[in-house]
Amino acid sequence: MISKDNLEKVLTFRSERNWEKFNTPKNIAVSVAIEAAELLEHFQWSENSSPNDKEKQAIAYEIADVAIYLSYLCNDLDIDLNQRVAEKIEINKKKYPVEQCKYS
Amino acid sequence: MISKDNLEKVLTFRSERNWEKFNTPKNIAVSVAIEAAELLEHFQWSENSSPNDKEKQAIAYEIADVAIYLSYLCNDLDIDLNQRVAEKIEINKKKYPVEQCKYS
Amino acid sequence: MISKDNLEKVLTFRSERNWEKFNTPKNIAVSVAIEAAELLEHFQWSENSSPNDKEKQAIAYEIADVAIYLSYLCNDLDIDLNQRVAEKIEINKKKYPVEQCKYS
Amino acid sequence: MISKDNLEKVLTFRSERNWEKFNTPKNIAVSVAIEAAELLEHFQWSENSSPNDKEKQAIAYEIADVAIYLSYLCNDLDIDLNQRVAEKIEINKKKYPVEQCKYS
Repeated sequence: MISKDNLEKVLTFRSERNWEKFNTPKNIAVSVAIEAAELLEHFQWSENSSPNDKEKQAIAYEIADVAIYLSYLCNDLDIDLNQRVAEKIEINKKKYPVEQCKYS
Repeated sequence: MISKDNLEKVLTFRSERNWEKFNTPKNIAVSVAIEAAELLEHFQWSENSSPNDKEKQAIAYEIADVAIYLSYLCNDLDIDLNQRVAEKIEINKKKYPVEQCKYS
Repeated sequence: MISKDNLEKVLTFRSERNWEKFNTPKNIAVSVAIEAAELLEHFQWSENSSPNDKEKQAIAYEIADVAIYLSYLCNDLDIDLNQRVAEKIEINKKKYPVEQCKYS
Repeated sequence: MISKDNLEKVLTFRSERNWEKFNTPKNIAVSVAIEAAELLEHFQWSENSSPNDKEKQAIAYEIADVAIYLSYLCNDLDIDLNQRVAEKIEINKKKYPVEQCKYS
C-alpha cells in the first residue's frame, strides 16, 4: 500500500495519540469513503480537464488520506494488500477477456 | 501505493483493453468513491465485530479495487504517493499535537 | 422528503421486521452513502449522455433507496426536512449572490 | 422528494445563476455522493450515540443538500420519485418476507 517506512510512521502517529480504540474496521471503512468523497470533490464540476499544479497537490493529499486509512485497515485486519491485488488482477483478466473487452 | 510489479500489471491490463480513454482523472475518482462504498457495504450493519475469514477475503478484494484505482490516478497524474503520504503525516502531526490530542 | 403515505409504508416495513434496532442514525447515514454510490455507478463511465428508459428506471430505484434512508433518518431524528431545505436555500442565496455567481 | 414550493425555489436558484449547464445527471449524481459523505462525516467517530441539538441542525442541513440534488436529478430526468418509492417498497416486501426476515 504505502512504504514500510510510512506505515511505521502512521502506526506510531495513531498509537502516540491512543486513537486505536476509535479505529474499528467499520470506522476506518467509513473514513475511507469520506476521504474518497473529498478526493471526488476536486472533480465535482470539472469536465475531464487535467488539474493544474495547485489542484494536483490538493488531490495528492486526498489520495494520501485514502491510502493512509486503507493501510490502517490492512494492518489491523492482517491483509497482505499486494497479494490480494495480484489475485484481483487475475480475477479481472478472466472476467474481462482482451478479445471481448478490447475497445477499438 | 501498490508494488511496482502490480502497477505494471494493472497498467498492462488497461492498455491491452484500450481502456485508458475511459480513465479520465474524474472517472477514476468516481470509481474510487464507488469501490470505497462497496468496501463500506461489508460493515453496513455490523456493530464493530471483527470480520470472519470469508468476510476478510471479500473485504481484501474491495480494498484491492480501491488501491488499483488510486494507483491509476497517481500514475496518470504523475503523483508520488509515498512522498505525499510522508508530507501529510507531518501536516497531521502539527494539526493534532500529541499533548492536546492524546486520548486517555 | 417522500409522501406521508410512503413514509407510513417504509416505517411499517421496518417495524414489521423489527429492524429499528439496526437503524441507528450512524448505520442509516452509512446506508445513504452506499446507496448514493450505487446511484453514481450508473454514471461511472458515461460521458454525460442522457440515460435511456431502461437506465432511467434503474436510476429511479437507486434514488428511491437514498430517499427512503433519508426519510428514516429525518423520522428518527425528528427533522423537518422541508423546513431545513427552505432554510438551506436562503443560506445558499446569501453564499452565492446572483450578481457574482451568474454564469454567462 | 421535497415540497413543490421548495422544488420551485431550487429550480429558480439554479436558473437565476445559469448553473443548469453544470448540472448534468452525472455531475448531480457525483454531488449526491459528495453530500452523502458530508452527512456521514457527522457520524465518523460516533458510537451510535444520539446527536445533540447543535449536531442535529448540521446533520439536517447535510440531509437537505442531498435532498436538493436528488430533486434536481428527479426533475431533470423526469422521474416521479414517490411513484418509484412506492414500487420499491413492493419490491422490498417480496425480497424480504416478514416471516423470513423478522428479527426477534
